[in-house]
Amino acid sequence: MVSAIKRFLIGRPLKSTELGEQKLNKTKALAILSSDALSSVAYGPEQILVVLITVSAAAFWYSIPIAMGVLILLLALILSYRQIIFAYPHGGGAYVVAKENLGIYPGLIAGSSLLVDYILTVAVSVTAGTDAITSAFPSLHEHNVIIAIVFVVFITTMSLRGVTESASILAYPVYLFVLALFILIGVGIYNILTGHVSAELHTSLGTPVAGISLFLLLRAFASGSSALTGVEAISNAIPNFKDPAPNNAAKTLVAMGTLLAVLFSGIVFLAYYYGITPTGGVTVVSQIAEQTFGRNFMYFFIQGTTALILILAANTGYSAFPLLAVYFAKDKFIPRMFTIRGDRLGYSNGIIVLGVLSILLIIAFKGKTEHLIPLYAVGVFIPFTLSQTGMVVKWIREKPIGWISKLIINTTGALISLIVTMMFFLTKFTQVWPVLVFLPIIIFVFYRIRKHYESVGDQLRLANREPAVPIEGNVIILPVAGITHVVENSLNYAKSLSPHQIIAVYVPFEREDEAAFEEKWHKWQPDVRLVTLHSPYRSIINPLTKFIDTVQRKAGESNYQVTVIIPQFIPKKGWHNILHNQSSLLIRAHLLYRRNVIVTTVPYHLEK
Amino acid sequence: MVSAIKRFLIGRPLKSTELGEQKLNKTKALAILSSDALSSVAYGPEQILVVLITVSAAAFWYSIPIAMGVLILLLALILSYRQIIFAYPHGGGAYVVAKENLGIYPGLIAGSSLLVDYILTVAVSVTAGTDAITSAFPSLHEHNVIIAIVFVVFITTMSLRGVTESASILAYPVYLFVLALFILIGVGIYNILTGHVSAELHTSLGTPVAGISLFLLLRAFASGSSALTGVEAISNAIPNFKDPAPNNAAKTLVAMGTLLAVLFSGIVFLAYYYGITPTGGVTVVSQIAEQTFGRNFMYFFIQGTTALILILAANTGYSAFPLLAVYFAKDKFIPRMFTIRGDRLGYSNGIIVLGVLSILLIIAFKGKTEHLIPLYAVGVFIPFTLSQTGMVVKWIREKPIGWISKLIINTTGALISLIVTMMFFLTKFTQVWPVLVFLPIIIFVFYRIRKHYESVGDQLRLANREPAVPIEGNVIILPVAGITHVVENSLNYAKSLSPHQIIAVYVPFEREDEAAFEEKWHKWQPDVRLVTLHSPYRSIINPLTKFIDTVQRKAGESNYQVTVIIPQFIPKKGWHNILHNQSSLLIRAHLLYRRNVIVTTVPYHLEK
Repeated sequence: MVSAIKRFLIGRPLKSTELGEQKLNKTKALAILSSDALSSVAYGPEQILVVLITVSAAAFWYSIPIAMGVLILLLALILSYRQIIFAYPHGGGAYVVAKENLGIYPGLIAGSSLLVDYILTVAVSVTAGTDAITSAFPSLHEHNVIIAIVFVVFITTMSLRGVTESASILAYPVYLFVLALFILIGVGIYNILTGHVSAELHTSLGTPVAGISLFLLLRAFASGSSALTGVEAISNAIPNFKDPAPNNAAKTLVAMGTLLAVLFSGIVFLAYYYGITPTGGVTVVSQIAEQTFGRNFMYFFIQGTTALILILAANTGYSAFPLLAVYFAKDKFIPRMFTIRGDRLGYSNGIIVLGVLSILLIIAFKGKTEHLIPLYAVGVFIPFTLSQTGMVVKWIREKPIGWISKLIINTTGALISLIVTMMFFLTKFTQVWPVLVFLPIIIFVFYRIRKHYESVGDQLRLANREPAVPIEGNVIILPVAGITHVVENSLNYAKSLSPHQIIAVYVPFEREDEAAFEEKWHKWQPDVRLVTLHSPYRSIINPLTKFIDTVQRKAGESNYQVTVIIPQFIPKKGWHNILHNQSSLLIRAHLLYRRNVIVTTVPYHLEK
Repeated sequence: MVSAIKRFLIGRPLKSTELGEQKLNKTKALAILSSDALSSVAYGPEQILVVLITVSAAAFWYSIPIAMGVLILLLALILSYRQIIFAYPHGGGAYVVAKENLGIYPGLIAGSSLLVDYILTVAVSVTAGTDAITSAFPSLHEHNVIIAIVFVVFITTMSLRGVTESASILAYPVYLFVLALFILIGVGIYNILTGHVSAELHTSLGTPVAGISLFLLLRAFASGSSALTGVEAISNAIPNFKDPAPNNAAKTLVAMGTLLAVLFSGIVFLAYYYGITPTGGVTVVSQIAEQTFGRNFMYFFIQGTTALILILAANTGYSAFPLLAVYFAKDKFIPRMFTIRGDRLGYSNGIIVLGVLSILLIIAFKGKTEHLIPLYAVGVFIPFTLSQTGMVVKWIREKPIGWISKLIINTTGALISLIVTMMFFLTKFTQVWPVLVFLPIIIFVFYRIRKHYESVGDQLRLANREPAVPIEGNVIILPVAGITHVVENSLNYAKSLSPHQIIAVYVPFEREDEAAFEEKWHKWQPDVRLVTLHSPYRSIINPLTKFIDTVQRKAGESNYQVTVIIPQFIPKKGWHNILHNQSSLLIRAHLLYRRNVIVTTVPYHLEK
């Protein structure tokens, strides 16, 4: 049943050797890895205006120079990451770069922020997309959280089906969204050039504005740079590309950067020229679309593709998180299960954990996008800074041909990223403080996990110890509850292992019972020693454990090993189990976890 | 930790031999076993008036003849149950009587209704008591369900502490309640006799009333007989009495019947004479008390002891349910765990199950007493009828000295109980239909459980089969995941059991891994055969199971037994477990439940 449902949802299992067929070409990779970055255009420009409006609408012209700053930042990031792709063709992005050049702990910080950030990617994209839908159908608004959760479950299932299939589903909405925004920007600019838009809707550039401050402009810039989240995804996912993977990845990165720059500038410019004011209910993109087309088909096409790409942007998280988790697991910061490929060759554990954690985040933040975005943005700029710094150290250390220009690019990237990170903490502290609390906790946990694995590895390594002393013989303890086929079966087995060292143990609660059982036993099995342990407090485990301790002490002296054989009868149907005292399970768990006893379970299958 | 909390809540464990000290004397027994029956006085008379008011207040005089009918019914039940006590001195009440005389399935019906009824006893008493409290403090009213649940948890804990201790706590409120009602009735009658109460408050007996019907009177009678619930409790609990148990029980029963008759008649009479009309907010007893004393100390004393006895009446359920469950479990209708005495010598499983089920009932009925009472009453009269009928059959069959008078008593009891049962179904069908749905389901489940135990017993009994064929030798399969101390340890153990029949099994996911591991293994353990099972679909269990099947088939031919040894390393701290793939647990569960393989777990305890 369960396995049939699994087959239906995620498809037939794939052989390990089918892995090569799952690689991405550039067109699909652009769709799958860029949806996060491109969809940021839907909320990035708005974030700038939201800060400026706190002074006055006259300050909107500042969005143009701020957008230029963001474009410079984008250029620096694209150039820097292009260098990272060629320098680290096996992927891993910020984590690997920071780890190899700055050391394991800066790497851990970069990687942990990225892991958390991918969870935020999923939460932010899905809730933003849900907002877009429920804005269109206000009656659904109170079900926001449930709708968002359903989307996460859907995307998780798609990801479990495997990389290529998700990409086929994803490709259309991403390109449709790009097409829709191109049409919007093109028609908008055409309208402006042909004089259909009044030039009085906006204040001209350079108009003096009362009350503007450097702090406010920095805050607006930091907000606007949230449009750059998702830029690093390609550098983490190079192994997913078709060969030659680094070249294809670099080309895809440049294509994505260009698209992002064009769309971002276009939206900022139109918003400025049309004099759009951000309001609670309607998004900036939606206002531009309405002014350009009116509420016709094109308006709904733009709104629809925006909602779709926002939700599917979550997929970037699903591509990048499991791959980064593999690096983390290989470095022993998180459990090894993250390195195992599922039936469809995706890293299913990473995919599932990502889905579950983002659902928890959505519930914790009650589906409110605006509270998630600042956390999300600051979480991106920490690894940006660390990876660029790592590259700077690398160039200084290795000094390859042409290293000076490479050094300049990465130094610029590192400085700008550092400045943006600091701006976030300075200008939006009330929103981003949780990063300062939770990131150190997560890093500490990862650190402890690594320590544990290292200690286990040391203990298991054969070279570290003398070879074990051979076992001279076996003593078998057989707890019995009566004289039945189950006991006969186990006794038979015990005799085949060690015919002369068997001790049957009976734990009576009443004195009378004790004598009666001993008599019955000696009649039935005169050769097998029986020990009865009267238990006045009606516990089986306590007297049994004490007895085993005694036997073990004696056996240990002559290098004998003690084995406890537990007869367990297994009913035909699962529900029958609740009708039988599960003493054997309790005894087994108690012995294994608290004592160094070998426990053998002899099953006795009932036939009806 | 857990065990310290347990000690604090329920006290130190008692030895089995301390059982005798826990027996009840008559005074305590009356308190513990009669609180249910006596507390019914608080709602029984009101139930009669609630039916009569549907015609008019003039019909209230009918409560006097109806109450006489109830008293006759009470007399018949007390006499009948007195005979049951002496005929069945080991207790078990309706279940044992019906089973022994009418057969196992009528017994099952009687016992099942009683079991369900004890759950209803707890639910009804606690919710009625909660109502009394929240009537006094209306601001608590919306928390009715929570308050009731807290009471159930409290009473459950008290019951787990043991019979005597609960009784000591119980004795005071029960006797205080009896005292309070005696004072109320005494003062009330004194006031009437001294002419302080106007004779015009009530219509005189025999006044003709328009619209009265036989149906309505029967309905009122059925409602009034809900005051008799709890009468059977003593006959179920005879083993709890001090010796001579049957005599003490019979005396306690008569004392209880007398008290019940006096209190019931007194309340009905005062309600009639004072012309009390039942209203939603204030109970009949409360109205009588207010008219007699005004809102002074005595009024609150009566209200307080009423609330207390209602809640503590639940304790009758806690005494009777676990004892009846023991009979049921001994007859294999319910799981054997109900026959095990807990640390304090009470049947803890029965007590806990009762607590949980009554909490579920309270939640399902949202704490509404009025919906629970009819179910409760009808559930009592089914076993009343069956047990009396059983006694009739017994007397006819055995014909002891004086059997004719005994026969007459039980026949009267049986007939009256049957009539009351039928009245319930005829006059209150909309309220009692769930009995017709759920009782058959419960009975069917109990029947199936018995069939299962019987079939298991047949299969386990030694006499039924040939003695098992001795095992010729052992083949040991050892799944290995690497070359570590854990594997070395298990291999050592395997060699001590069967040095020449060990097969190590390795399941690689990649072809390259296969050859490398084989080479390493042969260098390390040249004498131990290694089988590698390449698993292209990355499953360990599937190839392993197939391999074990093959080995088992071959081994079976020459009477060899296959044992799978599973190395399991046990980390120092519990939370470390989540850091390691729990493959060994999965493999073990799979093998034990699906195949007839013996599984040995060799623990390897990590030291840090």
